[in-house]
Amino acid sequence: MKKNVLMYEMDSFSYVDSIKRWNKTIIIPVGAIEQHGPHMSMNVDVNLSLSISKGIAEKINCIVAYPITYAAKSQQRSGGGYHLIGTTSIEGNTLISYVKDIIKEYIRHGFKNIILINGHFENNSFLMEGIDLALNDTKDSFRKIALLSYWDFVPEETINKLYPDGFTGWALEHAGVMETSLMLYLYPDLVNMKKVLDLPPADLPLYDIYPIIPERTPKSGCLSSPKNASVEKGEILYKVCVDGISKALKKEYSI
Amino acid sequence: MKKNVLMYEMDSFSYVDSIKRWNKTIIIPVGAIEQHGPHMSMNVDVNLSLSISKGIAEKINCIVAYPITYAAKSQQRSGGGYHLIGTTSIEGNTLISYVKDIIKEYIRHGFKNIILINGHFENNSFLMEGIDLALNDTKDSFRKIALLSYWDFVPEETINKLYPDGFTGWALEHAGVMETSLMLYLYPDLVNMKKVLDLPPADLPLYDIYPIIPERTPKSGCLSSPKNASVEKGEILYKVCVDGISKALKKEYSI
Amino acid sequence: MKKNVLMYEMDSFSYVDSIKRWNKTIIIPVGAIEQHGPHMSMNVDVNLSLSISKGIAEKINCIVAYPITYAAKSQQRSGGGYHLIGTTSIEGNTLISYVKDIIKEYIRHGFKNIILINGHFENNSFLMEGIDLALNDTKDSFRKIALLSYWDFVPEETINKLYPDGFTGWALEHAGVMETSLMLYLYPDLVNMKKVLDLPPADLPLYDIYPIIPERTPKSGCLSSPKNASVEKGEILYKVCVDGISKALKKEYSI
Amino acid sequence: MKKNVLMYEMDSFSYVDSIKRWNKTIIIPVGAIEQHGPHMSMNVDVNLSLSISKGIAEKINCIVAYPITYAAKSQQRSGGGYHLIGTTSIEGNTLISYVKDIIKEYIRHGFKNIILINGHFENNSFLMEGIDLALNDTKDSFRKIALLSYWDFVPEETINKLYPDGFTGWALEHAGVMETSLMLYLYPDLVNMKKVLDLPPADLPLYDIYPIIPERTPKSGCLSSPKNASVEKGEILYKVCVDGISKALKKEYSI
Amino acid sequence: MKKNVLMYEMDSFSYVDSIKRWNKTIIIPVGAIEQHGPHMSMNVDVNLSLSISKGIAEKINCIVAYPITYAAKSQQRSGGGYHLIGTTSIEGNTLISYVKDIIKEYIRHGFKNIILINGHFENNSFLMEGIDLALNDTKDSFRKIALLSYWDFVPEETINKLYPDGFTGWALEHAGVMETSLMLYLYPDLVNMKKVLDLPPADLPLYDIYPIIPERTPKSGCLSSPKNASVEKGEILYKVCVDGISKALKKEYSI
Amino acid sequence: MKKNVLMYEMDSFSYVDSIKRWNKTIIIPVGAIEQHGPHMSMNVDVNLSLSISKGIAEKINCIVAYPITYAAKSQQRSGGGYHLIGTTSIEGNTLISYVKDIIKEYIRHGFKNIILINGHFENNSFLMEGIDLALNDTKDSFRKIALLSYWDFVPEETINKLYPDGFTGWALEHAGVMETSLMLYLYPDLVNMKKVLDLPPADLPLYDIYPIIPERTPKSGCLSSPKNASVEKGEILYKVCVDGISKALKKEYSI
Repeated sequence: MKKNVLMYEMDSFSYVDSIKRWNKTIIIPVGAIEQHGPHMSMNVDVNLSLSISKGIAEKINCIVAYPITYAAKSQQRSGGGYHLIGTTSIEGNTLISYVKDIIKEYIRHGFKNIILINGHFENNSFLMEGIDLALNDTKDSFRKIALLSYWDFVPEETINKLYPDGFTGWALEHAGVMETSLMLYLYPDLVNMKKVLDLPPADLPLYDIYPIIPERTPKSGCLSSPKNASVEKGEILYKVCVDGISKALKKEYSI
Repeated sequence: MKKNVLMYEMDSFSYVDSIKRWNKTIIIPVGAIEQHGPHMSMNVDVNLSLSISKGIAEKINCIVAYPITYAAKSQQRSGGGYHLIGTTSIEGNTLISYVKDIIKEYIRHGFKNIILINGHFENNSFLMEGIDLALNDTKDSFRKIALLSYWDFVPEETINKLYPDGFTGWALEHAGVMETSLMLYLYPDLVNMKKVLDLPPADLPLYDIYPIIPERTPKSGCLSSPKNASVEKGEILYKVCVDGISKALKKEYSI
Repeated sequence: MKKNVLMYEMDSFSYVDSIKRWNKTIIIPVGAIEQHGPHMSMNVDVNLSLSISKGIAEKINCIVAYPITYAAKSQQRSGGGYHLIGTTSIEGNTLISYVKDIIKEYIRHGFKNIILINGHFENNSFLMEGIDLALNDTKDSFRKIALLSYWDFVPEETINKLYPDGFTGWALEHAGVMETSLMLYLYPDLVNMKKVLDLPPADLPLYDIYPIIPERTPKSGCLSSPKNASVEKGEILYKVCVDGISKALKKEYSI
Repeated sequence: MKKNVLMYEMDSFSYVDSIKRWNKTIIIPVGAIEQHGPHMSMNVDVNLSLSISKGIAEKINCIVAYPITYAAKSQQRSGGGYHLIGTTSIEGNTLISYVKDIIKEYIRHGFKNIILINGHFENNSFLMEGIDLALNDTKDSFRKIALLSYWDFVPEETINKLYPDGFTGWALEHAGVMETSLMLYLYPDLVNMKKVLDLPPADLPLYDIYPIIPERTPKSGCLSSPKNASVEKGEILYKVCVDGISKALKKEYSI
Repeated sequence: MKKNVLMYEMDSFSYVDSIKRWNKTIIIPVGAIEQHGPHMSMNVDVNLSLSISKGIAEKINCIVAYPITYAAKSQQRSGGGYHLIGTTSIEGNTLISYVKDIIKEYIRHGFKNIILINGHFENNSFLMEGIDLALNDTKDSFRKIALLSYWDFVPEETINKLYPDGFTGWALEHAGVMETSLMLYLYPDLVNMKKVLDLPPADLPLYDIYPIIPERTPKSGCLSSPKNASVEKGEILYKVCVDGISKALKKEYSI
Repeated sequence: MKKNVLMYEMDSFSYVDSIKRWNKTIIIPVGAIEQHGPHMSMNVDVNLSLSISKGIAEKINCIVAYPITYAAKSQQRSGGGYHLIGTTSIEGNTLISYVKDIIKEYIRHGFKNIILINGHFENNSFLMEGIDLALNDTKDSFRKIALLSYWDFVPEETINKLYPDGFTGWALEHAGVMETSLMLYLYPDLVNMKKVLDLPPADLPLYDIYPIIPERTPKSGCLSSPKNASVEKGEILYKVCVDGISKALKKEYSI
């Protein structure tokens, strides 16, 4: 068996050893199964949070848990909408319980430091709830849980460089330049730039309407055009995220 | 009994009449019970969403429901944190069910257009879930539900005018200039500018830590200083929100 | 900001002080949003429990929490039925969780004595459940929780005086003489005696039928006629309730 | 196999026949497992609701379902309290789901008329909730559900006869004259009058306190003395209940 | 009142004594309300687990709780299916909560040893969950909970004797020789061998299909023919189960 | 992007096409994160159900969904126990909701035939519940759901060949010859036969005890020795499972 930061590819005997040796620290990648346009696979959020988690784990010497895959409902203004075929969501309550259960298990295993690295915007509040419920049930243990979205660690200067024509905000980045570039760099087999639909950014109102009005989502399912994505941009993004998050976590956890 | 847009101050016979006459449209204000620094009462989010809802209802001719009051956990990076004394939160699951139940009731009453006007950032995802569950349970009815946060309707030019030294984003506005100005204009009795603690904006990391580390929240509980708040700014903010939202809703609902 | 027993109109800094100074005691008023005939607003149960709570709080020196507003399903034999338009109920499970969450928060704030003053009969069992679940989750804290319905403190002699033609029991008092008199005394703007429908008391069987048979509820929605209500009766009722409950609580809690 | 109104003692083939032949009507007895003093077994509420249900079923020609046994928390002012050893309660939420599930099953079996006969006061609101949830889930079926407590059918004249020294209300009847007399008549083997503790009625305040203060419940666990119970009174009570309920149901359901 | 191992036929004062004197041990029988062919009543699983529990309790000197009656959905390959009329199931979640609540109550009463004797195959996983949740909520108490299915204690030699033509496995035994024999021995009034439908064993695929395809269940509702059932076989089965389980429990619990 | 049966590696546009072209059939692999001894990784149940699902999908021309990964509590008698470090379980209720949500989503996407291929014994009842709840919520759609465990398709003759010294039943196969052989054939990198602990089969009682007594699980975490596992056996097992299940499904679904 190859040496690995991935918890689920370890045998349980090695895992027990790793917990002790590796700072009692584990990262849980959090993604979603969600359409990402005609040019990318539907596991983008799982794969990116997992890859970034692995990059960080190798830097800060910790373990990576099996990712959370099926997750919160994609919203029209941040992911095109949960009505789209391919997007496969679970209820908010289910996600809260799922996160709570998993965190409690890793605390039981002996971890003190648990880091959730989120790759799907809509998960955020449900992750917070799940974490809080897990805290309530584990009051006697020391545990310090971090929650972050990897794109928050892309610094302004990188944004300016990658979006020379101006940046319209992370919300419209769904299946746009950032995610596509990262996929091109990390999972080129799962991207096909020839299938890109180069449409103008989504023009959505300042509010949400339910039931979602499907015509308001761009035909591509992408909220902005991925046309300008590239491997090079993906590499830059990957590195600033991995570096930035690793640095922040090292400081926060004194590891 | 005075004429009123407030559902709960009507008698039920007048209410039945109003539903039919008033566009089958109801606004549900959504707030929170949350500390807002030493200079403001803890019902800021309830009161502001209620006042703005009333302003809109008078313009677009609809009814205002009893507000949702106790609500989602205040988070450290957007409200100081749910650990603070005074902040009184309910579980995410409870809020989801509560919203679902209430929306189902207003649909049963005969409303076609239901608008949630949110005044507490952390509620957003739970409101979305509650709305979706209510949709599932009322599949045979026509209903069109809108969800919005009033501050999203403050246009950039207003922001530039109100924050001449630069705007640090809505997240840090908790109990800052915007909310304090609105309270000064709408509920002057519930603000005491002499008690303002004029501290620098909160300096929080790019992630959340649980359990919350209390020292990271500014001593005031405000994420930015409300010192520059004024009645005049409150009036401007109130008017751009009421006008902007009314205009958007009129168009969206063709009323 | 004016001096106030109302928690939600305090700033959080004053609130922290009040908890310590004011017997670590808080009252949570519990109401409902429910039709109360053609002559009264739908917030009767919220307003009456709140006013009575304030009266008591001023006497026994304690704080009043934001009321619980949306609440248990009105039943045909005690409130006309939850099928009526205007009556806006939440599920029993939702109410249980809501009550549990709120009580836990006030315990976290430092209260030892928590008093629920109920103004809506159908809430009772769900409040009991919510209290019990909150107790389970706060085993390490001292807390003594009281639950009461204000009308239980109207003494027999008062009943005899106010109902010279005989009293038919609290169940039929929904929107009848008691509630209407209290509203006339406390919220005259929300009552219109000219709209009273003077019908004979509801003639309901000794059992409940589901789905509710709407014709069995009197057309007025009132289970007995409010015709004999008066400001004077309202004042008497308010005073015996506030005095009686205050006395009982002072003794029970030794405050 | 003997002829029987008891659903659970039928084979399923006979049961299918019975549903059709017997008015598509079923009674679900609802009890509790609860202490009933030193002189009676703990299944009083189950046994009495079951016996009365059987009596009615024989009169109105319908089926009796397996009773609901473990049930709502006994409250101090109506059953001595859920803290007592022997009293075995389930959570309110569990009871609601349990009732909902069972009612849905009997509707699936083909019943149109479902009657819950309750023998444990504290169950009432949870039964109402369970019924309502079952209605929601079976909207396409005709079903008419009745809920009653058997003691509500004891007429005033019977009360006057059985309680010559005055009647203190059903609440204090827990394990008192009514229940003990019925048990003496119906289940003499499960009563031992020699073990009766003849104490004055419980002297409880007009409110509930949580956690329950155990000393406030009479040592016997009975809220009033069963000393004056007798087989004769039991027979009278049984007959007025069975007759009264049968008559009411025949009329209500036109059977 | 006759001497009894049945908790629910004791008065609470005797029960308190019994807990202490009788090894702090209680058995909870677990059954189901489920069709068992045209020749047996629908309470087979309740009655058999109860009778066997009583037999064991007399041998090992402990108490028997009120059985769990309504239970998990009968599956086509082990009980004919939950679509059959007569079979009356509750949701898995409801059963989990129900079991959890009841176990917590018996722990509160003072029991250290709690034994669930299951007579309905499909309950198993839900009982495990309920037990685990009860453990979580009672972490400070010593409690040792056993879960078993009585048929697992029928030794191979008995099987060979009772099924001279070969044994097809417990799954197909639903309403077959084992259960029918036990009923003939223990509850002859609830069996009618003349109504036996002597059909070949069910021929079901190696998987489950949902919604259940009703034609795949044998017309009798029995998965194998009960024709060869007899009182004698019932006596043998009863004795090997009671003896085997008693012996195992005595050893396990050192009682 | 390479041609793929894996739903999550498709883009959503190709996915929509595939649903229509590929028999409206999807397989959901179901696994667990569970210790599998010192010689195998902890994702055995996920990987094996996924590989077998892919094999079948290629044969019957259908899609494979993202697997269910975190799953039901490992039990001592079938998986060593959920107390072991490495085994990472979720609550039964969480799993039920998770399965329900996911199935509802695939039905919404347009699938008529949904097949759950289970690789973790303890999941079974929770999968059944989740399926049933999904059926309740999708009553208007045609959908035919199959649930199977792959090992049920290993024919007796194969068992005899692979276990020449006798087969002790699937329960004891946890991390034994079957799973290890399959992993050797399908994921050799995740097995290390040098780390095998060759211990006698687990000697567990005929019942479960909670809390689990850790000493009763073999030190290896394997319920029987994997020593005799081999690539060849893995290939045989894989083929009989894929062939047998494919054949059965083709017939069942007429595809």
